[in-house]
Amino acid sequence: MNGAESLIRTALAAGSEVCFANPGTTEMPLVAALDAVPAMRSVLGLFEGVCTGAADGYGRMTGKPALTLLHLGPGFANGIANLHNARRAHSPVLNVIGDQATWHLAADAPLTSDIESLARPVSGHVATSARASDLSGLTARAIEAARTAPGCVSTLIVPADCQWEDADEALAECSPPARAAVDEAAVADAARALEAGNAATLLVGGAALSDRGLEAAARIAAQTGCRVFIETFPGRQERGAHLAPIPRLPYFPEQVVTALEGTKRMVLAGARAPVAFFAYVGVPSTLTPEGCQPVEWPLGADVEAGLEALAERLGAKPVPVAAGERPEVPAGAKLDPATLGQTLAALQPEGAIVVDEAATSGAVYASLAGSAPPHTTLGLTGGAIGQGMPCATGAAVACPDRKVISFQADGSGMYTLQSLWTQAREGLDVLTILCANRSYRILRFELGRAGIVEPGPVANALTDLGNPVIDWVSLARGLGVSAERAETTDELAAAIRRGLAEPGPSFVEAVLA
Amino acid sequence: MNGAESLIRTALAAGSEVCFANPGTTEMPLVAALDAVPAMRSVLGLFEGVCTGAADGYGRMTGKPALTLLHLGPGFANGIANLHNARRAHSPVLNVIGDQATWHLAADAPLTSDIESLARPVSGHVATSARASDLSGLTARAIEAARTAPGCVSTLIVPADCQWEDADEALAECSPPARAAVDEAAVADAARALEAGNAATLLVGGAALSDRGLEAAARIAAQTGCRVFIETFPGRQERGAHLAPIPRLPYFPEQVVTALEGTKRMVLAGARAPVAFFAYVGVPSTLTPEGCQPVEWPLGADVEAGLEALAERLGAKPVPVAAGERPEVPAGAKLDPATLGQTLAALQPEGAIVVDEAATSGAVYASLAGSAPPHTTLGLTGGAIGQGMPCATGAAVACPDRKVISFQADGSGMYTLQSLWTQAREGLDVLTILCANRSYRILRFELGRAGIVEPGPVANALTDLGNPVIDWVSLARGLGVSAERAETTDELAAAIRRGLAEPGPSFVEAVLA
Repeated sequence: MNGAESLIRTALAAGSEVCFANPGTTEMPLVAALDAVPAMRSVLGLFEGVCTGAADGYGRMTGKPALTLLHLGPGFANGIANLHNARRAHSPVLNVIGDQATWHLAADAPLTSDIESLARPVSGHVATSARASDLSGLTARAIEAARTAPGCVSTLIVPADCQWEDADEALAECSPPARAAVDEAAVADAARALEAGNAATLLVGGAALSDRGLEAAARIAAQTGCRVFIETFPGRQERGAHLAPIPRLPYFPEQVVTALEGTKRMVLAGARAPVAFFAYVGVPSTLTPEGCQPVEWPLGADVEAGLEALAERLGAKPVPVAAGERPEVPAGAKLDPATLGQTLAALQPEGAIVVDEAATSGAVYASLAGSAPPHTTLGLTGGAIGQGMPCATGAAVACPDRKVISFQADGSGMYTLQSLWTQAREGLDVLTILCANRSYRILRFELGRAGIVEPGPVANALTDLGNPVIDWVSLARGLGVSAERAETTDELAAAIRRGLAEPGPSFVEAVLA
Repeated sequence: MNGAESLIRTALAAGSEVCFANPGTTEMPLVAALDAVPAMRSVLGLFEGVCTGAADGYGRMTGKPALTLLHLGPGFANGIANLHNARRAHSPVLNVIGDQATWHLAADAPLTSDIESLARPVSGHVATSARASDLSGLTARAIEAARTAPGCVSTLIVPADCQWEDADEALAECSPPARAAVDEAAVADAARALEAGNAATLLVGGAALSDRGLEAAARIAAQTGCRVFIETFPGRQERGAHLAPIPRLPYFPEQVVTALEGTKRMVLAGARAPVAFFAYVGVPSTLTPEGCQPVEWPLGADVEAGLEALAERLGAKPVPVAAGERPEVPAGAKLDPATLGQTLAALQPEGAIVVDEAATSGAVYASLAGSAPPHTTLGLTGGAIGQGMPCATGAAVACPDRKVISFQADGSGMYTLQSLWTQAREGLDVLTILCANRSYRILRFELGRAGIVEPGPVANALTDLGNPVIDWVSLARGLGVSAERAETTDELAAAIRRGLAEPGPSFVEAVLA
């Protein structure tokens, strides 16, 4: 067995069963190893950002690190933006990057570069193989690191000779993933903090956003009278009318300040203390109210069980769920963020996975989705655009029995549209709803926030996607996905119904008025 | 004047007149500054790899660093692969990357990351602004670094508050770019080395690949009987029937070993000593014949003048040019790399800029282009695929009076197809010839070279782009570029003639049998 095969077999034995790949010459022995170990499923992406975003989506849905197989520094670099998102979402991912043979590095051949320097900013764990015989052990350690709660991106750099040279037959094993309990004192601290009632805020995030965690949070809030929020950009959140509504913490920092005003005590369960997404003149950077020392549970702890223990300790009883009324499809309306959001919330099926990179076009939908049947939503935790379509691709590979709805803004969608080809090739059950507002709309807001109330021609041009108009139907079809265009709610509803009824990928461009 | 405006004005005063941009919230003051300084041309790319590849192409054609304007670590990361190519081609580029405000960095907001760690592997110069008043000076130093021969990528990280705070009205100036002469002793060393006649090899590259440099190299070879080669992947090379043919050093290392066999002395004029692109078992890493100590002129020296001085010293006379016969369009033939190459070489106009990322489909063309009228070719020096379309975009911005031919492989083309939208938006005079062999053909060769003579289903799948077939005509039209498909030489010739006759972008998908 060579090093490459020992790597693949070690990963497979640890439960990593999918490899999102865009290999090159320095990964040929790994490609051969994928043929030797067919239980590892190989999925080709035509751009590395597709592979890394797919691994992120896969990791969020399964809790298991998928492999990415990437070609040297430049190939890895193409995947960094979506690894940044994976890092912020604490998704387990194992990057496998081929490098020049150890004895060829010094020649500084054209494709050689400092891969570790590129990898560190997005990786919780980085290792470089020195010989074939270390590869199984390094792979096991990298997977253990990726699976260590709350999860991280692991990166393994594998020179070509370490792949092709002989390795030991014996494979290293991974310790099983574990999540420490929230200790009793931390639960007690939280209970004391929440005695402040409306002057206390419970902020939940990460692993707390399961049905169990959210049910416990709602009970706790009802019992104590505390405020409760979900972190602004959850990596993964269960949603739907089966859960008591819990608002998300708003996006803009002034809104957060208002939402938290009067908070004297705060409990962070799976969430970090709130900070501004961006800095603005005269606006604070960290958003925890002054003088408030949060009770912060470790991100890697079992915060679901911790919330349940906290609810028990407080004597909190189950609360009746009063979800908002589910909207109906607004008949015969032009599409705008409101009618679009109503239409999607009205039609999405039970068990859907909604990958939400709809940006400004998705705000109304996000406020309505709590009225829809139980579903999972995956968000843009790291803020690096171009995540949605790859993430949807990986989620569909992870959960072939669930419908994936890729709810996508046009500006962000242009970053990684190659994903559609992989969806077509693999027959993935993804319905893409592409929100075409033909601008970087969020930047129009941000110009105003930066004091640029009358943008000049350059500012307008640099936020305009309408010249020329992008024909998304043509793009989707060019990549092998059947597609149509909708300009009214009726057309959109018909397209969504068709997409939901048929297996495999479909695409609708929703043109916003 | 704020820091942002001082940056833009400093760059403009130094002769950098174009900014390839994909800004976000942390770059809003720079966007406003671009409005305040309209002489700086702003060109929007819908993905950062378009911006960096365009800056590379612009730098190759003008010798001046264009600016890129990129959003934080993830936005920069999307541009790294093409900056890797720029680095290897010694193209001058000035990256301007917004960062969180200095006082917001510690909050570790979602989009925050270690930008310097990402920047170093592709940058010859990296600096981070600490205050608005340092920005003009840092900009001038970064431009000087980028322009220092042989040229490099400079990266300037600019926290948002350094952009929006007040700066000095006085702007820093750049020292003019200069190129040191090849010193007389080095010319004399080269002359002595070439006395070995056919046992000597002159390898030319970089700035030596101008008309002047190549004419001198041909004279020197004729006078001394030495072998002469052009580096394997030139960043920029003048070509055509006005120049004596000089072969390129081959790609595969065994071929290089054969080409250099018997070489006892070597002169490197603008080129590095040859190394293998990739390592293979039993094949050497560095390809300079054993015992041969090359005479190596500094890459940043004026190698054109150096070669002319060397020719003078050797008493070399002008040589008659005997270019190969220009092919005709093969009538009624199916398209393959040979008929495709003949058709393009037969039709390309004088003064064209041919951006060659045609990979395996372009090998025959490359062997024939020396018979075409005078033109410039830009190559994939760094090996990171996805360069061609962005580079063509930047070359067209740099040289609006020349026709750009973007000769592009399909696998590589999928990396940065967003370029076509920028070409349409700016009305750039680019004819794209997309070579659709529907596979990563080069990897089929590399599988064999790695000893995988009968690839299994995974290896076949991971090198196959034909399932589903990518409809490139649909993609190009979706991005606003008129497009057609060609399956025969007649159809291709007609499409090329139409594309050359009309200004603005056009696209032909050449389907290879």
